[in-house]
Amino acid sequence: MTIYGKNPAMEVLKSKKRVTKAYVTKTTLELIKPYSKQIGEVQVIDAVKMSKQFGDKTQGIVLEIAEYKYADLNKVLKRVEEKENVTLVILDSLEDPHNLGAILRSADATGVDGIIIPKNRSVRLNDTVAKVSTGAIEHVDVCEVTNLNMTINDLKDKGFWVIGLELDGTIDYREQDYKGKIAVVVGSEGRGISKLVKENCDFLVRIPMYGKVNSLNASVSAGLLLYQILTSRGL
Amino acid sequence: MTIYGKNPAMEVLKSKKRVTKAYVTKTTLELIKPYSKQIGEVQVIDAVKMSKQFGDKTQGIVLEIAEYKYADLNKVLKRVEEKENVTLVILDSLEDPHNLGAILRSADATGVDGIIIPKNRSVRLNDTVAKVSTGAIEHVDVCEVTNLNMTINDLKDKGFWVIGLELDGTIDYREQDYKGKIAVVVGSEGRGISKLVKENCDFLVRIPMYGKVNSLNASVSAGLLLYQILTSRGL
Repeated sequence: MTIYGKNPAMEVLKSKKRVTKAYVTKTTLELIKPYSKQIGEVQVIDAVKMSKQFGDKTQGIVLEIAEYKYADLNKVLKRVEEKENVTLVILDSLEDPHNLGAILRSADATGVDGIIIPKNRSVRLNDTVAKVSTGAIEHVDVCEVTNLNMTINDLKDKGFWVIGLELDGTIDYREQDYKGKIAVVVGSEGRGISKLVKENCDFLVRIPMYGKVNSLNASVSAGLLLYQILTSRGL
Repeated sequence: MTIYGKNPAMEVLKSKKRVTKAYVTKTTLELIKPYSKQIGEVQVIDAVKMSKQFGDKTQGIVLEIAEYKYADLNKVLKRVEEKENVTLVILDSLEDPHNLGAILRSADATGVDGIIIPKNRSVRLNDTVAKVSTGAIEHVDVCEVTNLNMTINDLKDKGFWVIGLELDGTIDYREQDYKGKIAVVVGSEGRGISKLVKENCDFLVRIPMYGKVNSLNASVSAGLLLYQILTSRGL
């Protein structure tokens, strides 16, 4: 996305958005200086070149903002069609961008084939997620879907086993078989997996806990599950 | 800790500190209303009772603030002396309170006996840590030490094996034996374990990664290690 003009540019910078590239003139360079940390690259060009390149509405400043692109689930499914082992991660209404960022890192490290989030009740890809993911956001496909349960039914039709991670799961997560095509479901921080999605899972696994509070951070739980999947597949 | 007087109280509230109990009069009740979310309990008492209980310097407002207490490492070691399996977690210069909070949750869930942090180069227990820990902060002993390497040497003298978690560790973390008394070392988010501490470890384990970015969130790594310790002990 490209932003033109002083006011829009300053709003973007003040909102702490990450700017991949800033085009400025000698005059507007001063304006962006306090925000240098969040700007990837700064190019100073003269006013004539500026209007030649970007038109006459720039007021001497143009910002390129990072865009977060979602992957197409059908394309992801097409890509993994012939694979023996496939892992999709369904995040059912995750709220915290720190958790999504950390899960993207774990997903990258464990070779997850794609992440599925519901369009309307989930944290979306944003600057915080990108920052926390330390680059993993560029390498893991995240797909948005309108209806999680419809997607889960589709996946089942395509031969996926759907495994939910829940506090009251019946199976120790270390005893579940994760071979083949699987989609694991991780719930929201506060409420876990929603009722209907939970009923739609083929298996519900749990992480055993021996403490007094007994609740793990969502990205820690997800990480444990993803590494158990690797181990179960002999990796 | 107890805070007396309008200005100090307002400063505390504006800084978003968690207040366990607020004593106010009918007049000062209005002052704290905008901050009700961060106050555990509010007691309205009359001015006479107020000065009887807290003296005449209150200006009608007294706040009790949550204090974060550190445990005494010697007491922790005394307590676990006779235990067959002991797990201490050494956090070498962790910086992010979210990570410390999440690690406290994992430590609670896996029955960690104590967490050790260096006094001068680490995130300390604070309101963010407490919030993220969802109560685990009350149940896990956190000990501050002045010199990590001296502490590690002491632990070794007391029969502990010291196991560092590092990207370039020589042993897959799932193949290490964690029985007996162990202290595991988790490094800082950016720089891992410091050089001297790393040299001081008996073993260095690594978490295998198969992605492009290949760095896990510190609390995810710590969680994986803590759960592997459980598994290795047959839990």
